[in-house]
Amino acid sequence: MGPHPAVAAIRLAVRRVLHDILTDHPLGAGPAAGPAAGPAAGPAAAGPAAEHPRARPPSPLVLVACSGGADSMALASALAFEAPRLGVRAGGVTIDHGLQSGSDLRAEEVVLRLRALGLDPVEAAAVTVGRAGGPEAAARDARYAALDAAAARHGAAAVLLGHTRDDQAETVLLGLARGSGIRSLSGMAAVSGADGRYRRPFLQLDRQTARKACLVQSLPVWDDPHNTDPAYTRSRLRHEGLPALEKALGKGVVEALARTAQLSRDDADALDSWARQAETGVRDANGRLECAKLYALPPAVRRRILRRVAIEAGAPAGALFARHIEEIDRLITGWRGQGAINLPGRVVAQRQGGRLVIRQG
Amino acid sequence: MGPHPAVAAIRLAVRRVLHDILTDHPLGAGPAAGPAAGPAAGPAAAGPAAEHPRARPPSPLVLVACSGGADSMALASALAFEAPRLGVRAGGVTIDHGLQSGSDLRAEEVVLRLRALGLDPVEAAAVTVGRAGGPEAAARDARYAALDAAAARHGAAAVLLGHTRDDQAETVLLGLARGSGIRSLSGMAAVSGADGRYRRPFLQLDRQTARKACLVQSLPVWDDPHNTDPAYTRSRLRHEGLPALEKALGKGVVEALARTAQLSRDDADALDSWARQAETGVRDANGRLECAKLYALPPAVRRRILRRVAIEAGAPAGALFARHIEEIDRLITGWRGQGAINLPGRVVAQRQGGRLVIRQG
Repeated sequence: MGPHPAVAAIRLAVRRVLHDILTDHPLGAGPAAGPAAGPAAGPAAAGPAAEHPRARPPSPLVLVACSGGADSMALASALAFEAPRLGVRAGGVTIDHGLQSGSDLRAEEVVLRLRALGLDPVEAAAVTVGRAGGPEAAARDARYAALDAAAARHGAAAVLLGHTRDDQAETVLLGLARGSGIRSLSGMAAVSGADGRYRRPFLQLDRQTARKACLVQSLPVWDDPHNTDPAYTRSRLRHEGLPALEKALGKGVVEALARTAQLSRDDADALDSWARQAETGVRDANGRLECAKLYALPPAVRRRILRRVAIEAGAPAGALFARHIEEIDRLITGWRGQGAINLPGRVVAQRQGGRLVIRQG
Repeated sequence: MGPHPAVAAIRLAVRRVLHDILTDHPLGAGPAAGPAAGPAAGPAAAGPAAEHPRARPPSPLVLVACSGGADSMALASALAFEAPRLGVRAGGVTIDHGLQSGSDLRAEEVVLRLRALGLDPVEAAAVTVGRAGGPEAAARDARYAALDAAAARHGAAAVLLGHTRDDQAETVLLGLARGSGIRSLSGMAAVSGADGRYRRPFLQLDRQTARKACLVQSLPVWDDPHNTDPAYTRSRLRHEGLPALEKALGKGVVEALARTAQLSRDDADALDSWARQAETGVRDANGRLECAKLYALPPAVRRRILRRVAIEAGAPAGALFARHIEEIDRLITGWRGQGAINLPGRVVAQRQGGRLVIRQG
């Protein structure tokens, strides 16, 4: 009898991603900085790859980032099962954000649970969460910095993240609320970070499947109280916004949002590449932007060039909104002698003799 | 003392659109089919343009499509005020969908109200709503067919529609639920239809402003019971989905959705034009699609070409979903000897010797 369908689904998702990682990091070509002399793939390593451990060069290490919640515990269990079968070493990291009392004990508990799955190395990393960008963004920044450090320390080829299709749908809606265009609708990438370090095997998988997989494998999971705290935008979205949308629009909303993310990402990538290429063509011999040539471009391409140029001039990307770009654009499309436009980061945009000048004032 | 801010807002919105219409249809260059010998601009025509009615060529006619609801009654009132000041004739059409008992009496009442505003010509058009595409789509198709006919009959330069920013936000969410990409996120266009006939002056204006403008002008309005009937998707979205999203994400959601519509429309237009241009470059001397050249394109451009080709081959656009295009795309990006792919409309896609063949089977 094969595994429960939910377990089969999470394992298949991880197996596919491990195959991709092995394609990018063939056996033996893994990072030399890894603890090659360390313990083998752990007690769960009973697959064919473990039969000749000494005949092979050091195998790549894949870490799972695990909060102890159902999604990442399911991910850890699938990694522990699949990695040894593919000759991959599997480890885990849990982040102690230090935001709740007893979070250090919680992190130690997660470490024990990951070790019990056979992962090795496993570690807890304590971080200090700042305030920049709000509580959720600050926690995320601290978390990724710690994961980057752990990956470098262990020479990991990849770090797996447990984001599900439901998380993706929420991320798309959060991007929609910014109203800043299709890049913010493109959610999380299946592969991201330096050298494609971060991988999200569950991005096409629903949260319910991950929970079910934990249940049938009798894995203890921890429900982060933040996930149900209505003080957090994402939590309100999860427990009120999305259910109301599903009630109005039908059950396929989460899947539709996730598909929108993928399509928007591809579209945004294509338009960014167009804008990069077009930018050289709209500059005169002195490198100045020619308004007539900008005018001839499609608005979607022109606005991307204007945004790129403003950021290069020193405007912080996060402070540059669609309305700023529209105002610069009117120097091209609705010229009636407007004065200089002040942008974030003390950047000034103005039209001078048929040329658009954007620079720090 | 000037008008109430809500009245000023609706008039400004209409004035801008009338200016655009006059730019496209200069005085005297209006459609010759118009009832040039008919009555002048009506009792409200007291502006400068009416001072020399005989010295001018026939002025263009602009119709308002009016359901009798607050949005389109506000629009009708603003058109009645602004049109004579710009030398434009203003008329109105109301559609009797015949879906509720007494709808014919209701339509006659709207006709009287539009005449009371000074609009001329005014007419009620009865339509028969079919079933194709569901009740909302069928009603919309019948409505636009009747508006097209009325515009042609009266030689109107434009037909104004009362869709507000709130309608736009709902349309974006309905498109999001389809999950079919950014074109379906681009909502309603400010200008659409043959020769840009349809104009939506209130697309940046919120519904509340339109209602307020009716209230302060003591205009009687009719609340369509369909708008609050939970049997209709849009009604559920309006009364449950969107309020829940606003509660989770903040009050700016409607504005963000409307901005997303505009940005998505520009992006989709740019990518469509890229795909049109790229398509000629990926065909061999015999006009067949070369897989290697398709492979070299960005996925966003390649998938648009595949979609265009499938539709040209006879696949109905409405039945061609993202998953169909993904399956064709795998003939290019994940070739492992797949067989022919069956598409809607008896269209078949297959790879033959490095060429992609899509045709009706």
